[in-house]
Amino acid sequence: MRYAVLGTGEVGRTLGGKLIELGHEVSLGSRVKDNPAAVEWADSMGPGAGHGTFAEAAAFGEVVVNAVGGRVALTVLRSVDEEHLDGKIVLDVSNPIAFEEGQVRLAPVESDSVGEQIQRAFPNTRVVKSLNTINCYLMVDPAMVPGEHQIFVSGEDQSAKEQVTALLGEFGWPPHRVIDLGGIRTARAAEMMLPLWLTLFQHIGHPEFNVEVRRAR
Amino acid sequence: MRYAVLGTGEVGRTLGGKLIELGHEVSLGSRVKDNPAAVEWADSMGPGAGHGTFAEAAAFGEVVVNAVGGRVALTVLRSVDEEHLDGKIVLDVSNPIAFEEGQVRLAPVESDSVGEQIQRAFPNTRVVKSLNTINCYLMVDPAMVPGEHQIFVSGEDQSAKEQVTALLGEFGWPPHRVIDLGGIRTARAAEMMLPLWLTLFQHIGHPEFNVEVRRAR
Repeated sequence: MRYAVLGTGEVGRTLGGKLIELGHEVSLGSRVKDNPAAVEWADSMGPGAGHGTFAEAAAFGEVVVNAVGGRVALTVLRSVDEEHLDGKIVLDVSNPIAFEEGQVRLAPVESDSVGEQIQRAFPNTRVVKSLNTINCYLMVDPAMVPGEHQIFVSGEDQSAKEQVTALLGEFGWPPHRVIDLGGIRTARAAEMMLPLWLTLFQHIGHPEFNVEVRRAR
Repeated sequence: MRYAVLGTGEVGRTLGGKLIELGHEVSLGSRVKDNPAAVEWADSMGPGAGHGTFAEAAAFGEVVVNAVGGRVALTVLRSVDEEHLDGKIVLDVSNPIAFEEGQVRLAPVESDSVGEQIQRAFPNTRVVKSLNTINCYLMVDPAMVPGEHQIFVSGEDQSAKEQVTALLGEFGWPPHRVIDLGGIRTARAAEMMLPLWLTLFQHIGHPEFNVEVRRAR
């Protein structure tokens, strides 16, 4: 499968690297054509790994992974011709986070989410929110943390969620550890876990943790 | 120990009932003196169980449990003479939730929390936020759900958090399953779990669940 991974940060490079390792082809998208991080990443990955502008990457990918910050996601996606997005799955792994005066601020929060924003702005895409609740190394290597901890998916399109669930399976998440929260509106709940994640990160001292939903029956 | 439990809803009655069962004395506080739910509760509980206005309950309690809705917590606490709060632990188990046009709305959210609001308004109290992340029956019977799932505490006063942790121990939460998130500001993170809780409640179909934080080391 051909993937566009938008964003050359740690999240994008980590997801892209795992996709290459799994035998997929990846174009790592960036604001500029020859982003040094993207060039270095593609060189180190070898065959199957390419890079380009956000538009070039999106044109290449059959699935588009949004791995840029949640607050710039719409700007980035608007730089892509809609024809290169139409009908495609957009896997949104972002959080709408910024640091303001040393404090974390989410925007939107509670009454909207990045997942919904993308789905509204690009109604011909099929947005699936997932993976935003954990660190990127854990995204692609769930065995790093013991236990039956889970990952969430949110989205309107059932077949898109199934396809993402299959991809999560390739990453190491068996289907029973993928919780379908419901429609894209439930991305709000997943994005609002960020403050707890940051607080636990401070408490635990490293990012290798996740939550396991335990239930009586 | 003498507890004031403010609020005669399911949460207040459940917490109050468990406290009585544990041998404590409880005054269940309400807006009016002879709230039928409070009278019935006290009658059914027998010795050790009383009721009164919010002010009377608070005057009685050595520890004050806020089990009214998060959005009315300040109004309720302001109806109590400050002398009946000063120096006391206020255990805040509330969420600032309301339903608006069929949608859940938290207020405050993200930039503030009920826990902080109470601590600011009553600087001579020692506010501990806890238990707001789970259903009230699970609060007092953690074995209802399998696994080493946890409960959070947030607050400025270490000895108050220790006293609450001891109370949680009486409820059945061993100390290693009480995660101290930090100062009262971290109540924001705990309160922002509510949308995930509601989404999981819908997904699972019953409220007997909790999250277990799993970590690599």
